[in-house]
Amino acid sequence: MNVLITQSGGPTAAINATLSGIVERALTSASVNRIYGALHGIKGVIEDNLICLETVLSNPAELVRLSKTPAAALGSCRVKLPEPGSNDEVYKTIFATFAKYDIGYFVCIGGNDSMDTVMKLSAYAKAHNITNVSIMGAPKTIDNDLHGMHHSPGFGSAARYIATTFAEIWADCRVYDIPAVTIVEVMGRHVGWLAAAGALATVNCKAPQLIYLPEIAFDEKAFIEDVRAQLAINPAVVICVSEGIRYADKKFVAEGNESQVDNFGHVRLTGAARVLEDLVIREIGCKARSIELNLMQRCAGHIASPVDLTESRLLGMTALDRALSGESGRVSVLRRVLDEPYQVEYDTVPVQEIANLEKAVPHEWINERGNFVTQDMIDYLQPLVGDMCDPQHGLPLHTTLY
Amino acid sequence: MNVLITQSGGPTAAINATLSGIVERALTSASVNRIYGALHGIKGVIEDNLICLETVLSNPAELVRLSKTPAAALGSCRVKLPEPGSNDEVYKTIFATFAKYDIGYFVCIGGNDSMDTVMKLSAYAKAHNITNVSIMGAPKTIDNDLHGMHHSPGFGSAARYIATTFAEIWADCRVYDIPAVTIVEVMGRHVGWLAAAGALATVNCKAPQLIYLPEIAFDEKAFIEDVRAQLAINPAVVICVSEGIRYADKKFVAEGNESQVDNFGHVRLTGAARVLEDLVIREIGCKARSIELNLMQRCAGHIASPVDLTESRLLGMTALDRALSGESGRVSVLRRVLDEPYQVEYDTVPVQEIANLEKAVPHEWINERGNFVTQDMIDYLQPLVGDMCDPQHGLPLHTTLY
Repeated sequence: MNVLITQSGGPTAAINATLSGIVERALTSASVNRIYGALHGIKGVIEDNLICLETVLSNPAELVRLSKTPAAALGSCRVKLPEPGSNDEVYKTIFATFAKYDIGYFVCIGGNDSMDTVMKLSAYAKAHNITNVSIMGAPKTIDNDLHGMHHSPGFGSAARYIATTFAEIWADCRVYDIPAVTIVEVMGRHVGWLAAAGALATVNCKAPQLIYLPEIAFDEKAFIEDVRAQLAINPAVVICVSEGIRYADKKFVAEGNESQVDNFGHVRLTGAARVLEDLVIREIGCKARSIELNLMQRCAGHIASPVDLTESRLLGMTALDRALSGESGRVSVLRRVLDEPYQVEYDTVPVQEIANLEKAVPHEWINERGNFVTQDMIDYLQPLVGDMCDPQHGLPLHTTLY
Repeated sequence: MNVLITQSGGPTAAINATLSGIVERALTSASVNRIYGALHGIKGVIEDNLICLETVLSNPAELVRLSKTPAAALGSCRVKLPEPGSNDEVYKTIFATFAKYDIGYFVCIGGNDSMDTVMKLSAYAKAHNITNVSIMGAPKTIDNDLHGMHHSPGFGSAARYIATTFAEIWADCRVYDIPAVTIVEVMGRHVGWLAAAGALATVNCKAPQLIYLPEIAFDEKAFIEDVRAQLAINPAVVICVSEGIRYADKKFVAEGNESQVDNFGHVRLTGAARVLEDLVIREIGCKARSIELNLMQRCAGHIASPVDLTESRLLGMTALDRALSGESGRVSVLRRVLDEPYQVEYDTVPVQEIANLEKAVPHEWINERGNFVTQDMIDYLQPLVGDMCDPQHGLPLHTTLY
């Protein structure tokens, strides 16, 4: 029997590590003959657009390089399959591709949206009594919003990039002695895990002094009070905001400038940080600047967390291993079993426990004022971002002379 | 006699390497007693705000860490001294501080603006027959616009960050098969060296496909033609633009949206990349996105070029060494003496050859169409960004499966 792998959803720095884990398990299994990858997710399966992976990845150097290549080496897509039973043509096409290539093991690497595909394919197979193909999911997302696991593979690398960047932005912003507020926007449309990761920088430096997450209703007055209080302590204030922060009425802060149109009448969507930059200039009148970490936070392979890459690889291995053991309709997960030393175990759970669900930051890990996270959050994050052999846990330690 | 060091101008990832080089030379010289740093550049000298460096930096671990700490560990300022002779009060104050702390050697680390300070202090000393203090400059700037040297210390690290980031943004952008244009803006208000550094990514990947520099008048029609031509080859197009690109009438592209005001009547300055994003959406109608590399490109110490850090350290050493030999009114420089293997030599030149001057990208290193750089430019850049022992020259090599 053969293996078929897809990747879908937004890129991370670790999604190819998961692919390499699946390939490693396949290369070393007597039950697997060929290893295929479909290009651009399930779309590649539907369109019969498959490539053969075992030749190129039998070269160990390529296999190692793949695990360190950010984003999705097989390409990605954002396709939502119809409900099985409503329009079965697409399912017939997919299972015809499986049959054509003698696929016994299908692994989809993706986030909660992509797990919807795993769930629907499993449901279709069950309803049609198709038992010769195991359909499995391997998780990935920078957002850390996947249920059923301690943390999401891909998140640790994004967290490391974010924490490192805050330490560096702090080093940059602190050089001048005039009051200046720097507002840095990180991803996370619905949950604040990535914003919380900014707090890791405070292990070695003073920034960010304030963190705002989508889990807490954003209040402009409280924000300005917070900024004034920080400016009274230090002229350089660095703030971390999630792109998804909302006012109490659920309106995104990032939509605050809807009335603003460009020369051609297009509404310009403005980032949350830019909206807050304007607010600081207007209310406080000091220098303010906004920065978006943009795509860099999800594709910074050069600073990927070694812990994250290893876990991602083993989650890929686990997904295929359990498929080889006859499991189907499940997703590989990891559980933190010991804090000191950090230890995890790998398992699988039914896809229904993960697909289409989102895990938010628990309120008890956000401080009472709603402008920072607690030590419990920092303790949760710290092992995810770096090599445990590194005394700095993968974060830079800068010298302070004054 | 004692040493006094200042840092001024915008941060780079290598400015503290230069500081550590000066400190290393001072620690090992029998002629130097104490090593002082003035906080926030010449302002710290004027305000008698000095700290003592030899105690903390006698710890080798701190010295090494300092050389890897981005930005200016002594703080910075943007102060322009008056012309000597016009208002001498400030000069009297500065030389009083020199006398109070028995300063025999003053080294200012900075760019072409900061070298103005070195030039004016030297002129004042000469005019007033002050011969007991050597006044020297040590260069730094990410912009690579300093005259008198092959390249500017600090530039190599910024170039490495930019090239690495383009490789990673390419890995991210290529995953989808729908047409999308990503426009990445790098620093360089007047010169295009940093934008040119994007071309280094093309050694290992396909992006950026287009580069626009301030040295070439920007033409919207030609730009749209360029983008269309690239879209015909590949759905993912990644473009590098300098923040300083201007139209033929010298108007900055980044000011293109001057008529756009926010809800409170403030003119919003829009980055060049954002202006081009709008242009692509309007003229071509495909997906477009703009990204600013912002402060990260100048403070990304975690990916600083080892070549740049070493050269920066030795430029600091050279400045103090020549001061100890009796030179004054000069700036340390480096010259590339051999291409293969890459070799440089260190020397000093009169500060007048550097202060207030800007070196642009030579036109012969820009292609005829004005939308990319030549191989000569890539050959110039490549040794600056990484460790020569690294076969990738410090740039990531990603796996491509399709």
